[in-house]
Amino acid sequence: MKKQILFWSMMSWMVSVGLPSFAQTVEDFKPSEVNQPGKLYPQVNSERKVRVQISAPEAKVVQLDLGGVKYDLTKDEKGVWTGESAPQQEGFHYYQLNVDGAAVPDPGTIYFYGAGRWGSGIEVPAHDADFYALKDVPHGLLSEMNYYSNLTKAWRRCFVYTPAGYGDNKDKRYPVLYLQHGSFEDETGWGRQGKTNLILDNLIAAGKAVPMLVVMDNGYATKPGEKSPFAASIFEEVLMNEVIPMIDAKFRTLSGREDRAIAGLSMGANQTMHIAMNNPGHFAYYGGFSGTSNYPSTEPLDATTFLNGKFKDAKAVNVQFKVFFLGLGTAEPHPFPGVVKAFRQMMDKQGIKYVYYESPDTAHEWLTWRRALNEFAPLLFK
Amino acid sequence: MKKQILFWSMMSWMVSVGLPSFAQTVEDFKPSEVNQPGKLYPQVNSERKVRVQISAPEAKVVQLDLGGVKYDLTKDEKGVWTGESAPQQEGFHYYQLNVDGAAVPDPGTIYFYGAGRWGSGIEVPAHDADFYALKDVPHGLLSEMNYYSNLTKAWRRCFVYTPAGYGDNKDKRYPVLYLQHGSFEDETGWGRQGKTNLILDNLIAAGKAVPMLVVMDNGYATKPGEKSPFAASIFEEVLMNEVIPMIDAKFRTLSGREDRAIAGLSMGANQTMHIAMNNPGHFAYYGGFSGTSNYPSTEPLDATTFLNGKFKDAKAVNVQFKVFFLGLGTAEPHPFPGVVKAFRQMMDKQGIKYVYYESPDTAHEWLTWRRALNEFAPLLFK
Repeated sequence: MKKQILFWSMMSWMVSVGLPSFAQTVEDFKPSEVNQPGKLYPQVNSERKVRVQISAPEAKVVQLDLGGVKYDLTKDEKGVWTGESAPQQEGFHYYQLNVDGAAVPDPGTIYFYGAGRWGSGIEVPAHDADFYALKDVPHGLLSEMNYYSNLTKAWRRCFVYTPAGYGDNKDKRYPVLYLQHGSFEDETGWGRQGKTNLILDNLIAAGKAVPMLVVMDNGYATKPGEKSPFAASIFEEVLMNEVIPMIDAKFRTLSGREDRAIAGLSMGANQTMHIAMNNPGHFAYYGGFSGTSNYPSTEPLDATTFLNGKFKDAKAVNVQFKVFFLGLGTAEPHPFPGVVKAFRQMMDKQGIKYVYYESPDTAHEWLTWRRALNEFAPLLFK
Repeated sequence: MKKQILFWSMMSWMVSVGLPSFAQTVEDFKPSEVNQPGKLYPQVNSERKVRVQISAPEAKVVQLDLGGVKYDLTKDEKGVWTGESAPQQEGFHYYQLNVDGAAVPDPGTIYFYGAGRWGSGIEVPAHDADFYALKDVPHGLLSEMNYYSNLTKAWRRCFVYTPAGYGDNKDKRYPVLYLQHGSFEDETGWGRQGKTNLILDNLIAAGKAVPMLVVMDNGYATKPGEKSPFAASIFEEVLMNEVIPMIDAKFRTLSGREDRAIAGLSMGANQTMHIAMNNPGHFAYYGGFSGTSNYPSTEPLDATTFLNGKFKDAKAVNVQFKVFFLGLGTAEPHPFPGVVKAFRQMMDKQGIKYVYYESPDTAHEWLTWRRALNEFAPLLFK
């Protein structure tokens, strides 16, 4: 009997949060925190529904395109279109508007690079947002750096986080975390929607993480003339032969292997696992958020052949890494859970130590990766 | 006779560049250099016409809204709308698209803050673009800095350019230029569409300017609770009491008056002139680009009353400023030419020395200000 009541109350909850057309919407919408200055829309309510609004007097159909679903808006007598989504997961989501078939950014938000474009984003307030809040603690700098790559014969850009105090402590040297974005994203992601600077500022101020530099480069790198997405990546060569020497020359870094970490999300997790395993003399810490190098396969891994047997010698891997970290959101779509599971089963079978973190109720999105960074950074350089 | 020929050839030139509907368009369009990665539109041709393209199959009217003019686009059988503007002036322009009455950013470009919004921009290649090109010279860093203002009781942000070599020369101290944006713009403008970092990189590499820091803050500052645009500005207090002390504490600056310059564009020229004149012990250099503190008046100025008589004692002003610089585009709209002219007439009458620079064929836009900075920076700290 109790089980039946539970079942029906769950069903009613699912209807209320999952099917907005049948449900009353709670009218406590507030402007998203990543809106442009002075812009009232988009908004988010306590049910985590997203409401957008745009004036388009002559339009026939206006839609909100969010999380793979297109929601029809309705027009008022002034030609202003308004409408809302179903409840969203906590955290940051990319979205766009559709005006009579034109897919465009919402003029209400600031813009982010993701999904292969500069476009709109919405911040659905997370219950644990405090760890990446802008707080009254000492703040580091996030610096944009242009550099010419001889390997790609092109200008490239990276962002470098230097912690509070870097400018004052003229003789102090710092360890470095190299932190990579995912596919269809770029070097701006971790410093912008990823909140890397604020996460590190807060961790360092609380004494939870040691002061460190974080370098965020662009993970797309191909030989000159090869521009297609199918061209072979030379990101590993660019990072190892150009970026790391440049950072060690231009910043006061510690350059031993125990002072260097590498991590990435999704495609970046895959890339950086290759780089960490190919260059054991350079990295003592690895973080893979929502991805491993067996992607997209969910098949069992054979340690004698996977990545040319790099995980075959468990003892050597356990010596190499002071921390080997994996992170995943519990709501991630196929194939990510299966991919990471297959990798972990290989690690377990081999007896290789690793830290595993699950982000509750988040998908293949930035709240998963903010949380993973917040768990990973305190483990570094200790 | 010669005069008549000249007249008619000028008329024919005006028709060809000024009235696109009568003119053949030259089909040598190229993607704008501030397009998103991989985006083919918007484009610019050798006549400096801007062509945009967007898919909007269900739309009735799609327009390009550029330079105060709305240009109708035409739809092809696939629902893709294309069209172009009249010839534009060289340099950077803000614009937007209009889809059935919805004013939206063009999904083809990266975005810039100006005209009171984050929106699209187009770069019409300038014949002298080399001075702000990304070249193989040593590059400085452009750093984003969050700080809490006790005066406004709010988080604020500034950007700080540090020149190449700042990280290496641990004991060297640098002079500082404080550089302000115009109205409806923000602290991102000078570092983004203003190309400040590239202009300084190139000038310093060529030995034309001395290595300096450039600090770009947000010119909007009001007391806590006062948020309307009509609230009294306390930017001067924020700059003098919070920003300058913070920069002098966090960076290796030279902090004497002869090592500090202040400049701004439009509203920022007006603000920084007030600040320079109110704080003679702090600034030995002033730059006003497309603006002076008599704005918007074009009436003759009385030096005994203007700015509380700050320009009355010509001898003192000539001693105070090692360089007093004014810049203006020759194509600026009313009232800017008249405003600056009235100010210069007062300066001439008083016998106060100043450097005057005119940017050829540019309006109240960023190419004027890039050029003005390129002329001003070499005069500093020498």
